[in-house]
Amino acid sequence: MKFSIKKNIILEQLTNVSKAISPRNIIPILNGIKFDLSKDGLYLMASDSDLTIQSFIPASEIENIEVEGTIIIQSKYILDIIKKMPSEVINFEVIDNLKIVIYTDTSKYNLNCLNSMDYPQIELNDAPSHITLKSGELKKMIRQTIFAISTQESRPLLTGINFKINGNIVECVATDSYRLAKKTMTLDSPFEDAVDIVIPGKNINELDKIIGDEEQNVDIHIFTNKIMFKYQNILFQSNLLNGSYPNTSNLIPADFIHIINTKLDEYFASIDRAALLTQSKDKNIVKMEAHGNELCISSFAEIGKVEDRITVERNNNEDISISFSAKYMMDALKTYEGEDIIIFMNTDSKPIVIKSATDESLIQLILPIKTY
Amino acid sequence: MKFSIKKNIILEQLTNVSKAISPRNIIPILNGIKFDLSKDGLYLMASDSDLTIQSFIPASEIENIEVEGTIIIQSKYILDIIKKMPSEVINFEVIDNLKIVIYTDTSKYNLNCLNSMDYPQIELNDAPSHITLKSGELKKMIRQTIFAISTQESRPLLTGINFKINGNIVECVATDSYRLAKKTMTLDSPFEDAVDIVIPGKNINELDKIIGDEEQNVDIHIFTNKIMFKYQNILFQSNLLNGSYPNTSNLIPADFIHIINTKLDEYFASIDRAALLTQSKDKNIVKMEAHGNELCISSFAEIGKVEDRITVERNNNEDISISFSAKYMMDALKTYEGEDIIIFMNTDSKPIVIKSATDESLIQLILPIKTY
Repeated sequence: MKFSIKKNIILEQLTNVSKAISPRNIIPILNGIKFDLSKDGLYLMASDSDLTIQSFIPASEIENIEVEGTIIIQSKYILDIIKKMPSEVINFEVIDNLKIVIYTDTSKYNLNCLNSMDYPQIELNDAPSHITLKSGELKKMIRQTIFAISTQESRPLLTGINFKINGNIVECVATDSYRLAKKTMTLDSPFEDAVDIVIPGKNINELDKIIGDEEQNVDIHIFTNKIMFKYQNILFQSNLLNGSYPNTSNLIPADFIHIINTKLDEYFASIDRAALLTQSKDKNIVKMEAHGNELCISSFAEIGKVEDRITVERNNNEDISISFSAKYMMDALKTYEGEDIIIFMNTDSKPIVIKSATDESLIQLILPIKTY
Repeated sequence: MKFSIKKNIILEQLTNVSKAISPRNIIPILNGIKFDLSKDGLYLMASDSDLTIQSFIPASEIENIEVEGTIIIQSKYILDIIKKMPSEVINFEVIDNLKIVIYTDTSKYNLNCLNSMDYPQIELNDAPSHITLKSGELKKMIRQTIFAISTQESRPLLTGINFKINGNIVECVATDSYRLAKKTMTLDSPFEDAVDIVIPGKNINELDKIIGDEEQNVDIHIFTNKIMFKYQNILFQSNLLNGSYPNTSNLIPADFIHIINTKLDEYFASIDRAALLTQSKDKNIVKMEAHGNELCISSFAEIGKVEDRITVERNNNEDISISFSAKYMMDALKTYEGEDIIIFMNTDSKPIVIKSATDESLIQLILPIKTY
C-alpha cells in the first residue's frame, strides 16, 4: 500500500471511524483502523464488534495512489500523528509487509501494524428498503431524547433508545423510568414494515458526533438485529439491544387538571436558582407551588432556603404543590427551542408533562417526588 | 448589615477573595467570606490562614448603605447565588443576627451565617518600604517560572518560587531539581534591603488569576515571614516557606561548546511530534542529534519510531547527541515569545540552556537524561 493524501481529508475520516473504537476493548485487532486502498479509493473501517463505522475516500480526493493494499494501523497514535504532521500532503507507504511509514519531507513515523487477514469480516449491506431523514432532524431527535436514557446496566434495554415506525410516523422514546422523552416525526411516505427496535444509547451518541451541521440526507437501513445509517461516504452500523422495550404509550396522561403557560427562559432560570440550595447534589429536589397566577419555586438545605417567583398564565385558580428533580426538569427544558412552554399536571403524585406551545412533536415527562 | 449593590461589582470581588479559600480547609469559619460594611464601603475577606485576600468596594460603588455591620457568609454557595440572580441590583440584609437574606423582587435566599467575632484577626499592614512592579511584568515573571516548581511535598521549599532582590535587580527562580527557570527584572531605583525569600507556588498561582490584563501597579511589601501584594483595591497576603532555598546561581554554566539558533515554533513542533512515540507518558524522552546544520529529534516506543528534522544555525560542525524530557522542553519553550531561540549545550550529560535570541532576562535550564 502506498499513497499520498491531503492532511485534512484523511484526518476528518480517521476522526469519524475512530469513534467506533472502544477504550475498554480487549481484542487487540479491534484497536486498529483498517486501511483498504484500491484504485477506486481508500476504505477506512473501525469496529468494537457492537458498532462498526466505515468511511470511503474516493480516488478523486487522494493525491496519488501508487500501490493498492490493505493493513491495520493501531488507532492509539494515528490521529495525533496526522494532526501534528507539518505539511499539507502526507505520504503513507507499507514496507516489510507489516510496517507502515507515514512521512513528509522532514517528519517520518515508522509504525508496526497488524495483518488485515486477522480483521473480522463485517457485513455492511443495504436492507431491501430504507427510510430517509434529514441530518438536522435526526440530530435534533437524538438530542431531544437521548439524555433521558438510563445509565444503569441493570436494566439494559433502558440504556437504549426505542425507535418505532408505524406507517409514516417515526417515534423515538427514551426513559430511565423516572422521566421520559418522546419525539415524533412524519415521513413523506409510509414505510412498508412496522418497526419497534432499541438502539444502544452509546452508539447513538457517536452518530450524533459524526453527523455535521450541513443539511444532508441520512438513509436508515433496518434489520432484525442491526441498524445501518448511511451519511455522506460513511456507513454507521450498530447492533440492536435484544428484548421488548416497555410499553410507554399509556404513561402519558391524556387529560390534565392544571395547565400552565410560561416563558421557557424565565422558568428555567427560576428552577436553576432554586436548585442551588437542595439537600444533596443527587436528590436535587425543588418544590413548585402554583398560587393565583404565580409560580413559586423553592428549596432548602442545611445552609438556608430559597424562594423564587415567576408570573404565569393558568387555566384555573386552584393551588397545587408538587416536588421534582430540578436536574431532570432542566434536562427536559433544554430540549425546547421556542419562547413558551406549557406545563401539564394532575395531582402532586402524577406525572408532570412539558410541551412546547407551538410544536406538538416533542413531549417531556417527569415523575414527581413525594416529600414529607 | 443592610445594603444594595450591582451584581457585577460584588461578583467580581467575591470571585477575587474566594481564591483564598482552600477546598481542603478543616476550620469551619475559614470556609466563610467576611463581609464588613461601614459608611466608607464594604470590605470582603477570605483566608486559609496561609493566604489572605481582602478586597474593598468603596461606598461610591455601592447603591445604598442602610445599616453597617459585619458577618461571615459561607463561601460554598454565595458565588453561584450571585451569578444566577435575575436582576442587576442585589439586596443584602442581615436578620435575626446570624441570618442573611439576599434578594431581588422575585428571588429570595435565606442563608445561615457565622459570627464575625469568631473570625481570626489577620494583620494586613504595610511594610516600612516596598517595591512597585507593573502588573503585566509581574504576571509574565510568574508564568515564565512557576511551571518549574516541584509538586513533591517531600521537598517543600522547591514547591515555592525563590524571590530575590539585590540593589535594583529582582530575580525569580523555580526548580524541581530536574529543570530550572530564572527570570530577572530591573527596578527603577535600588531597594534598600537584600531580599531572599520563598513564596508558596500555589499562592502565586492564585495571584496570577487575580491580576487582570489591564496595566496597573502592584506594590509588594516584604516581611520576614510574609509578603503582601497590593493591586487595585485588593490586598493579597501570603505566608513564606521557611528555610534556605538551594543556591542555584552556580548551576547555569557560563561557557558552552554548542550554540544552536533555531525558530521557536519549528523547534517546538518538532519536539511535539517526536514526543508522540515515547516509551511512557511519564518519561517522555526524546533524543536530539545535531549533525551539520540539521537537528534530528527522534524517539521510539513499542509501536514504532519517529524522526523529525529541522534546519538550524550552529557555531560549529561537531556532532552531539543528547536526550531529554520532551514535556520539560515544551514547558520551557512555551515561556518564550520571540521568533528565535538559542540552545546552549556542552556535553550529553551537562545542562541544556535555552534563551531568547533578543532578551537576556529569561533562562530555562533542563537536565539531560542518560539513555543506554
